[in-house]
Amino acid sequence: MTRPRRRTLAPPVPAVGSSPGSVVYQGPERDAPVVADLIVYGPERYEERSDVPLEEALARLTETDGIRWLNVDGVHRAEIVERLGSALGLHPLTMEDIVSLGQRPKVEDFERYLFVTLRMLAFAEGEHGRPELDSEQLSLVLLDGIVVTFQERRGDLFDPLRERLRQGKGRLRKLGADYLAYALMDIVIDRTFTVLEDYGDAIETLEAAILEDPSTRVLERVNHLKREMLLVRKAVWPLREVLAGLERQEGQLVSRTVITYLRDAHDHAVQVIDTVETLRDMLTNLHDMYLSSLSYRMNEVMKVLTIIATIFIPLSFLVGVYGMNFHYMPELSWRWGYFGLWGLMVAIAVGMLVAFRRRGWF
Amino acid sequence: MTRPRRRTLAPPVPAVGSSPGSVVYQGPERDAPVVADLIVYGPERYEERSDVPLEEALARLTETDGIRWLNVDGVHRAEIVERLGSALGLHPLTMEDIVSLGQRPKVEDFERYLFVTLRMLAFAEGEHGRPELDSEQLSLVLLDGIVVTFQERRGDLFDPLRERLRQGKGRLRKLGADYLAYALMDIVIDRTFTVLEDYGDAIETLEAAILEDPSTRVLERVNHLKREMLLVRKAVWPLREVLAGLERQEGQLVSRTVITYLRDAHDHAVQVIDTVETLRDMLTNLHDMYLSSLSYRMNEVMKVLTIIATIFIPLSFLVGVYGMNFHYMPELSWRWGYFGLWGLMVAIAVGMLVAFRRRGWF
Amino acid sequence: MTRPRRRTLAPPVPAVGSSPGSVVYQGPERDAPVVADLIVYGPERYEERSDVPLEEALARLTETDGIRWLNVDGVHRAEIVERLGSALGLHPLTMEDIVSLGQRPKVEDFERYLFVTLRMLAFAEGEHGRPELDSEQLSLVLLDGIVVTFQERRGDLFDPLRERLRQGKGRLRKLGADYLAYALMDIVIDRTFTVLEDYGDAIETLEAAILEDPSTRVLERVNHLKREMLLVRKAVWPLREVLAGLERQEGQLVSRTVITYLRDAHDHAVQVIDTVETLRDMLTNLHDMYLSSLSYRMNEVMKVLTIIATIFIPLSFLVGVYGMNFHYMPELSWRWGYFGLWGLMVAIAVGMLVAFRRRGWF
Amino acid sequence: MTRPRRRTLAPPVPAVGSSPGSVVYQGPERDAPVVADLIVYGPERYEERSDVPLEEALARLTETDGIRWLNVDGVHRAEIVERLGSALGLHPLTMEDIVSLGQRPKVEDFERYLFVTLRMLAFAEGEHGRPELDSEQLSLVLLDGIVVTFQERRGDLFDPLRERLRQGKGRLRKLGADYLAYALMDIVIDRTFTVLEDYGDAIETLEAAILEDPSTRVLERVNHLKREMLLVRKAVWPLREVLAGLERQEGQLVSRTVITYLRDAHDHAVQVIDTVETLRDMLTNLHDMYLSSLSYRMNEVMKVLTIIATIFIPLSFLVGVYGMNFHYMPELSWRWGYFGLWGLMVAIAVGMLVAFRRRGWF
Amino acid sequence: MTRPRRRTLAPPVPAVGSSPGSVVYQGPERDAPVVADLIVYGPERYEERSDVPLEEALARLTETDGIRWLNVDGVHRAEIVERLGSALGLHPLTMEDIVSLGQRPKVEDFERYLFVTLRMLAFAEGEHGRPELDSEQLSLVLLDGIVVTFQERRGDLFDPLRERLRQGKGRLRKLGADYLAYALMDIVIDRTFTVLEDYGDAIETLEAAILEDPSTRVLERVNHLKREMLLVRKAVWPLREVLAGLERQEGQLVSRTVITYLRDAHDHAVQVIDTVETLRDMLTNLHDMYLSSLSYRMNEVMKVLTIIATIFIPLSFLVGVYGMNFHYMPELSWRWGYFGLWGLMVAIAVGMLVAFRRRGWF
Repeated sequence: MTRPRRRTLAPPVPAVGSSPGSVVYQGPERDAPVVADLIVYGPERYEERSDVPLEEALARLTETDGIRWLNVDGVHRAEIVERLGSALGLHPLTMEDIVSLGQRPKVEDFERYLFVTLRMLAFAEGEHGRPELDSEQLSLVLLDGIVVTFQERRGDLFDPLRERLRQGKGRLRKLGADYLAYALMDIVIDRTFTVLEDYGDAIETLEAAILEDPSTRVLERVNHLKREMLLVRKAVWPLREVLAGLERQEGQLVSRTVITYLRDAHDHAVQVIDTVETLRDMLTNLHDMYLSSLSYRMNEVMKVLTIIATIFIPLSFLVGVYGMNFHYMPELSWRWGYFGLWGLMVAIAVGMLVAFRRRGWF
Repeated sequence: MTRPRRRTLAPPVPAVGSSPGSVVYQGPERDAPVVADLIVYGPERYEERSDVPLEEALARLTETDGIRWLNVDGVHRAEIVERLGSALGLHPLTMEDIVSLGQRPKVEDFERYLFVTLRMLAFAEGEHGRPELDSEQLSLVLLDGIVVTFQERRGDLFDPLRERLRQGKGRLRKLGADYLAYALMDIVIDRTFTVLEDYGDAIETLEAAILEDPSTRVLERVNHLKREMLLVRKAVWPLREVLAGLERQEGQLVSRTVITYLRDAHDHAVQVIDTVETLRDMLTNLHDMYLSSLSYRMNEVMKVLTIIATIFIPLSFLVGVYGMNFHYMPELSWRWGYFGLWGLMVAIAVGMLVAFRRRGWF
Repeated sequence: MTRPRRRTLAPPVPAVGSSPGSVVYQGPERDAPVVADLIVYGPERYEERSDVPLEEALARLTETDGIRWLNVDGVHRAEIVERLGSALGLHPLTMEDIVSLGQRPKVEDFERYLFVTLRMLAFAEGEHGRPELDSEQLSLVLLDGIVVTFQERRGDLFDPLRERLRQGKGRLRKLGADYLAYALMDIVIDRTFTVLEDYGDAIETLEAAILEDPSTRVLERVNHLKREMLLVRKAVWPLREVLAGLERQEGQLVSRTVITYLRDAHDHAVQVIDTVETLRDMLTNLHDMYLSSLSYRMNEVMKVLTIIATIFIPLSFLVGVYGMNFHYMPELSWRWGYFGLWGLMVAIAVGMLVAFRRRGWF
Repeated sequence: MTRPRRRTLAPPVPAVGSSPGSVVYQGPERDAPVVADLIVYGPERYEERSDVPLEEALARLTETDGIRWLNVDGVHRAEIVERLGSALGLHPLTMEDIVSLGQRPKVEDFERYLFVTLRMLAFAEGEHGRPELDSEQLSLVLLDGIVVTFQERRGDLFDPLRERLRQGKGRLRKLGADYLAYALMDIVIDRTFTVLEDYGDAIETLEAAILEDPSTRVLERVNHLKREMLLVRKAVWPLREVLAGLERQEGQLVSRTVITYLRDAHDHAVQVIDTVETLRDMLTNLHDMYLSSLSYRMNEVMKVLTIIATIFIPLSFLVGVYGMNFHYMPELSWRWGYFGLWGLMVAIAVGMLVAFRRRGWF
Repeated sequence: MTRPRRRTLAPPVPAVGSSPGSVVYQGPERDAPVVADLIVYGPERYEERSDVPLEEALARLTETDGIRWLNVDGVHRAEIVERLGSALGLHPLTMEDIVSLGQRPKVEDFERYLFVTLRMLAFAEGEHGRPELDSEQLSLVLLDGIVVTFQERRGDLFDPLRERLRQGKGRLRKLGADYLAYALMDIVIDRTFTVLEDYGDAIETLEAAILEDPSTRVLERVNHLKREMLLVRKAVWPLREVLAGLERQEGQLVSRTVITYLRDAHDHAVQVIDTVETLRDMLTNLHDMYLSSLSYRMNEVMKVLTIIATIFIPLSFLVGVYGMNFHYMPELSWRWGYFGLWGLMVAIAVGMLVAFRRRGWF
């Protein structure tokens, strides 16, 4: 058996020494049932069936001749993926990738089909009530006239797309399975912008907090964001490559019309990457600001201490002098000695304050 | 409906799940009317009409055979862009890009026309009376003999160009629509230099402020400039790519003569990018200087504190000794005890000052 | 004679001036015997012999016609490697590389055979009972139908693979020597993930330690990890190149089927490299956090000192004043002088505390 | 009108909206007369005329058939450049570049001629009596048999070259105009080394100053050098590109023989770039050293303060105790109380010094 | 005359304005005589003559038909290099490069011969008895059957090679001049590893010193190593390029057999570069550690000061109170006043120590 792996760093790879291409689920434990939805459509038709049994779905996939979109929620039962994959003629490595969560986004051309993996980013309720980054794997197989998508769990971003399919407005119903695949990827990329905006907001909040009160809690938060940003980056950087790869696929599976749309998505991907880099720069700035803000506050504290100390230390010395018990201290018997000393001490204090002011200390 | 997006970070992309190529305005709310100006010219002719109604503009665009430049101020009424785009045969994705503010500069070849997006940078009055970076999107469509430009709002950089057109001096009236498009882009790039110079001035002012008084206000300002610089960079970096893309377009739309001019603009774009990188380096230096300046000042403060404290602490101890009430303290009854102590204390103080001076503390 | 070299930095190269291609062992001294295991298999057959004498192994290698895998544990007796290499027709440089430990991962095409070097990373018990990175060299020679592997010492990662061979399940027994070579490399890459995960854990532990108590011991540990990470990086970066090199070898030695698997391993290698870079970023963050955490703690300490000092220094001055022995000090004889002074001092202390609170010092 | 531009950052570009290719001088105001020198030479001939009138120079340029080198000192009278350019058939953009100071080094191929811009670096007397970087633009036009050079002002690096021409030694007189152009560029590149060496000296001086006394004046100086280095870098980086561009020009204008020399100059340019990068690294080190040196000194100051304070604070407390006026304090009447206390205090002080020494504080 | 140049930064280039290709010695002054050794060998023959006069050497070079290796120690007498160069038909630029010390490693193909420059790194006794980096230039000319090497001074790394030639073992005597050239370069690269190892040791020593006692002397040493590393890097980075360049030379001068060996040397060069980068990373870490270590020590010092001060300052205040001379202070006459105060003060001190411990201050 494979030991459970954390998803944060290392992608879940097969247990060391296991056979490559062996379809074993690699991810957090889940017991939700695996469900599938099938949508079949064309310019003039539309049918949608939720929670279809696997056998029926397979039957429908091969029988009909409209555009077929099979969406599977849950890949933790590897045998289901395996049966589906075999029926569709997928390569064992494709099936292994589908059930190994934590894949790097990529596109692979297996001639009969294209295999695309993407990461759907979102914010989920975290441990401390604070939103935490959630990164779900989307595997997409584009065959001739068929799109099969695999997600880790129920609940997705694609409802607006289903709505558009139902209503039959726009280009969607008129174009092929390649356009459907593009539309799905486009949604994933657009969603990433929303996530990045939330990061932008979080960074601005932190910046204000740092200038106001640079506590270690803020430092921890900055570091947390930095680490999440490393994950976002790993999910986002390969996007450019993925889309460039798809654009080179013009041929039987991907039509010329869709290439134009893919170029647009490519453009969006580049913008996503730019934004991630900008956010990373901002986070680095934040750390610098933290240090600068701390230094500044320390400086202020030191100045107060120094002003107080340097004024009173000499004065305390003076009053100490006249607290001595020498038998012969002429000043003690002077008539105005006490008041004269007060005058001297006030003069010293004022003189020092003037000197400090001149140095710009307060 | 799409929720309002900030323009600072993420480019405004269509609402997640909306149909790609759907022409929905993405940007800050505006209610200024959308106005269009049409200029038609040739070596021997020149006519200019401001605020032309859309239908009339479209009619003129197709009828005449001179060089036609239609400039539209305002893209917040998507339906206008859509009607115009359909009449000119623009691709839905082009129309979507025109109304989605915050595009990355790019050039796209749609065979029948070239589509270029640029960012016009300027300083606008900001919140605190301080100038803030303003980045407006310029979309430019170059068809055969026709240039259509879309700006976000009224008021632009192109008046000197219009004046040159009116006067008919120079090459401008003799060359084609491609040269007009080049001239427009050249103005946008040249304007960027002016903006960068203003940043250079701001950085020099800050540098002086840092050496004089490193307050958190200065730190905030440095950070603000750093962040604006990230935006400038995103607007400027793709310029090289845009111009290299245009240079490859030699053919029907872009003549050989204009390619020479584009190469010159390419050169300017490289200089703009160089300058941005130089400014970024200078801003990073600024942050380092801030920290160094703070450290230096803290060092100075500490030295004053230490000199005062180390001189008076032992003296205070001594006067404390002779303030004790022991019954038997022989020194107290010495004739010259008091004055002798003063002498000792002055000697200690002078000795310490000499030692500090030797260490180079003041 | 060659002087002993540390393995941490410089790869063991031949003694300066020695003949290139001279097969002299370069590595730590060892006296374990060199042992060899031979496995011969095909779709229908499987024989395994441990600790075979060299002559017998060579005889079997040339006689049989199944897939032959000869694994040699120990390369510190160069003459054995030399005899084996000559019998198989290896180039002198290949033999030199096999016995020179500390090679950079690479692939070399000698037409008759492919030579691959990899590094097997693991954690071994270190000096202070703490796990230390261990990097062992694996040399792999792929001839027609034959795979020869050389390891530094007994004990390896390949037992699960041997088990799969014995059981004859999966593709392994049906495909050729190229697939065996791929399976061995795949195991080495997958094992690297496990090592990287352990680093991820160590980094998280250190991060907690830094926020809690930033001692120099922690700093030393961070630095130790950074240095080990440099070694990991040197072992991991060339992997991409190695696999890209193998993918280009499609031909007699590497079949088309196996190329698909190599592409998958390539993908894993890229993920390994990504993860290494992420870990390096995290370690850099750790150092920044260390400094920030120290600064924060210093700040806290300074604030306490300043609060205590600035409150009591003026009060001490006041009580000093009334400890003076001037003959004429009117306040001393006032009825409520003593209690009035207490009142004044409490007022000063409270006033200062209020002022500090307002500045947000506690 | 164009507003005056600083040369430090932005290259002087035409006023926003002015016609591209318009020949308007962009640079600091000058009123020195523009003068031209003409040298005509061949293997057997040499004639040199200083301060030739423009018309005569143009006449000679076209009449003669030797190698002709026209050097123009001063480009601030654009009309002169324009007349010269028209006579030689230069493109308007070339003329614009010649009179726009602050160009990035580049080479442009206009088929009939090659246009090269370089920057001649030198140190000029600066504001504070300190040498400041001076960057002058050299424009070079290579036509068939003719070299025309434009400099910003009188006084240049080329006198040794003129001397070599006069004496007719070496290859110079025997080879063509392309070799002359190469020789001019070679001088400019070699001069850059001298400037870089001066920077190297300045950096070493600063390093000593930092270790001795890290004042803000030193910090300002480091920053000044960093900023000048950014300018040097902008002048130097494109050199590689320029020379690679020229090497590709083998043909009518540039002979094969000269290509060999250009490769050598290319090599020198790479060395210049390497040196610039090394100097930048050294300057970054300098800043780090500044901070480290400050920290170290602060540490030293703090240790002195702490040693003095921690020794005397407890002692002062003790003498304070015996200065109290309680009616019943038995120690006060002890015979050896006073001297016993002195003994105790000496013991405490010595004990503390020993403890500090063990901690390695002094 | 050329002014003397430091070798540390700028490569010695010809005096500004001197004729390119003029053979003038550029380097430190030397007066050792220039000596030459000639070795002629073949599979069956070997003759070696030390200190041969130049004329005789030239005669032998052209007469014999074995492999000829002429090694010249000393290039400070340019006329010797010039005569030799002319006799062998070298290009003036090659001769200039040989006598200009401080060349960047490179390979140049002059068709009739290959010209290679390398840097031999070593440690020489430095000013302060500490080893300093020494970088000597090796110029190598490979003609048909002839290798000519130029070194700066007597004493080199090649004695083991000469020994191997004498003994006639291995491939060396059987292969051509190209293999000899390879063997020489291989020695230079291997020697670099030894130098890098010494740096590795020095860095480890410094790291221990930093954690123990971060003095400015250590800081100076770190900086010295950083600067030397910049030089090492400049000597090492071009190696990859040099070897890649040689591998492309397969043809008359470089045989196919030797290409295989060059590939191996290429591999070593990449390892050298990797190691240099690793060492640079370690040096950067060192600087960070220095700052962290200083900060940590300052923190420790501050904590001691704060603990002592915050405990005694309130106590000193209390004893000051009872040293006042008010006529009416009821506590003074209390029977247990003095001892009660002691009790209170002990309680305060203990309470504070507990509080500090809870904050983890000691």
